[in-house]
Amino acid sequence: MLNVKTPDAVTKIIKAQFKPIDFQVESIPLNAALGRVLHHDIISEEDIPGFNRSMVDGYAVIASDTFGCSESIPAILSVAGEILMGESAESTLSQGTCMIVSTGGEIPDQANAVVMFEHAEDYGKGMIGIQKSVAPGNNIIFKGDDVSVGDIALSAGTKLTPHDIGILSALGITIVDVIKKPVVGIISTGDELVPPTDTPGRGQVRDVNTPMLLAAVSSFGAEAKSFDLIEDDEKAIRKTVMSAVQICDIVLISGGSSAGVRDLTARVIASEGELLLHGIAMKPGKPTIFGKINGKPIFGLPGHPVAAYMVTELFVRPLVEILLGAKVKYYSTTAKLSEALSSNHGREEYIVVRLEEGTAHPVRGKSGLIAGLAGVDGYICVPRDCEGLAKGVEVKVVYF
Amino acid sequence: MLNVKTPDAVTKIIKAQFKPIDFQVESIPLNAALGRVLHHDIISEEDIPGFNRSMVDGYAVIASDTFGCSESIPAILSVAGEILMGESAESTLSQGTCMIVSTGGEIPDQANAVVMFEHAEDYGKGMIGIQKSVAPGNNIIFKGDDVSVGDIALSAGTKLTPHDIGILSALGITIVDVIKKPVVGIISTGDELVPPTDTPGRGQVRDVNTPMLLAAVSSFGAEAKSFDLIEDDEKAIRKTVMSAVQICDIVLISGGSSAGVRDLTARVIASEGELLLHGIAMKPGKPTIFGKINGKPIFGLPGHPVAAYMVTELFVRPLVEILLGAKVKYYSTTAKLSEALSSNHGREEYIVVRLEEGTAHPVRGKSGLIAGLAGVDGYICVPRDCEGLAKGVEVKVVYF
Repeated sequence: MLNVKTPDAVTKIIKAQFKPIDFQVESIPLNAALGRVLHHDIISEEDIPGFNRSMVDGYAVIASDTFGCSESIPAILSVAGEILMGESAESTLSQGTCMIVSTGGEIPDQANAVVMFEHAEDYGKGMIGIQKSVAPGNNIIFKGDDVSVGDIALSAGTKLTPHDIGILSALGITIVDVIKKPVVGIISTGDELVPPTDTPGRGQVRDVNTPMLLAAVSSFGAEAKSFDLIEDDEKAIRKTVMSAVQICDIVLISGGSSAGVRDLTARVIASEGELLLHGIAMKPGKPTIFGKINGKPIFGLPGHPVAAYMVTELFVRPLVEILLGAKVKYYSTTAKLSEALSSNHGREEYIVVRLEEGTAHPVRGKSGLIAGLAGVDGYICVPRDCEGLAKGVEVKVVYF
Repeated sequence: MLNVKTPDAVTKIIKAQFKPIDFQVESIPLNAALGRVLHHDIISEEDIPGFNRSMVDGYAVIASDTFGCSESIPAILSVAGEILMGESAESTLSQGTCMIVSTGGEIPDQANAVVMFEHAEDYGKGMIGIQKSVAPGNNIIFKGDDVSVGDIALSAGTKLTPHDIGILSALGITIVDVIKKPVVGIISTGDELVPPTDTPGRGQVRDVNTPMLLAAVSSFGAEAKSFDLIEDDEKAIRKTVMSAVQICDIVLISGGSSAGVRDLTARVIASEGELLLHGIAMKPGKPTIFGKINGKPIFGLPGHPVAAYMVTELFVRPLVEILLGAKVKYYSTTAKLSEALSSNHGREEYIVVRLEEGTAHPVRGKSGLIAGLAGVDGYICVPRDCEGLAKGVEVKVVYF
């Protein structure tokens, strides 16, 4: 009955089964675009900069006029004028003359280098002595050096960072076409659950997963939509799942920690769509269910918050990124393990860690405890069939 | 006249001069709290869980009833009933009896262990045989195991992650007291600047820094407030800075890439408040100014976007975190350098890098180019007086 897969196999299934959701585009103002995903390549229609700019405060010159000069034998040039910031350099420059320019300002067409003020002496009466020669191109950013017409300045799938926002501003793109955020529906089931606003009676606990997963999927770039708590009842689960499938792109049902209740979720998925797996060979997270209904991915997550969080990080995050068509990198580091970890009996084990000065401190506890997650930085993976890890070995820590 | 400091000295000045802004508190709903900073310690008023819970589906037992049993000599117990999920375990359990419990459900007070279904045989008629002994405490999460009354569940200054949101939900905290976001005013100056919506003429460029820094300071957890572009004019700078100081907690003035214009900003700060430094011995970012007016920190950032970004990342981000009283960690990794870097002549040099499979690719170019920032992951620092770094050496990459 059970159809248990390894984490790698689950990742392959997710990649094979789901594609970007029609790349639905949304046009938004640049100041709301941080963290959003570019819909298409940004091809520059302009040269940036649009003119030859000086990189320093100094004298725009014809480089050959300075060849061979030195402090003892300066090259004498006459100052033909000054180009103010923001002004076009329409005046001409002829051999033997120079113009005063500022950092970032335009240089005259005929000039091909800039001499810094420090390397020239002002003799007064419009005459200066250049004490250090410059080669053509020195201290100039040429038209199109930064971006040329036709360049791909940013490619489709880029998750926009502050510097990307800077690049878009430079190109004059103030309305950006981004991919619509996928909507992730979050459903918690459990006869023992009460909303976080309530005081639980004996035998009851507050629903942790809905608010936690809401925050998690928002941080992945999705739009989170929560549903009311439902009881462990097949009819109720079916009704809520089917209405969630109508309005969401991904549905997460968490809860049902007992085997009987997990079966309800599996049964609903199997009867309304296709059950792709029933169990993942990992710890925590084993009782995870995954399938699809009307082509929409549905996760049955474990009820234990730590397990639900880990499965969401490992599988829901990449799925959100697939639906967004986003190119993202996962950041990691290596650290020394602060204590030995015992063998894990054939299942990949994911252990959250706190990092302190290059040391990874595993945070462990009984299944379901959430307080231990305070202050954790990422997780390590202990491979299947690993006989345990010794204290002090180097481990790869993936940041949350 | 110049008062140039090393980056370390600048960090010390920032830490010495500025304190959290009166810890102004704001009460917000939990679903808006991701990334916000906790105002005070969260001390639990409850035990979590509030009752002894089973970690498995099975039989709640008095452990001593199972001692010495085995598959060949099972311990025979009578099933006194079942505790359903969400129900209180008010029924009593006496020696020689057991009760059916579900994962996460309450166990009877007298029970002190749970035997998994797999380790018992159902003989029917309410009798079972336990085939594996359990020790007291086995398969139970005790009342208060996760968080006990009086525990500090989360401490003041925590920047809330999805799992922290989970911890708050578990405690029933649905309105959270967080620190008010500091307001960062962003001013760009420059006679050559036009708004990103405009098409620049010759000699003009679009303002990149305002939108870029707006996104950057928002990502640090501050509220960004932008001002209209101003010209390189002391009176205009003075007027805008003084009105920004009234309504902002930090003011960033970027632009003024030429020495003369930088002096205008320095003069405004010196005359209206105190100029703390005029230049940082780093590359890029040397022409940075820092001071305070009416106790408010003011940065004069370089006009070059890359330099402005780096200075903002290195000094404005920690200042925002100081004003928030936030405890944050900077994530880094080590990577092999893809190419040799030459010496940097006595200034710390910060070079942005792209990471690919453990290799750090430095992104360099002429000062002021921004297109190269597309896709960078973090930066490396080449120390002062370093004679250069060889290809293949290990470098520390700090993630953006």
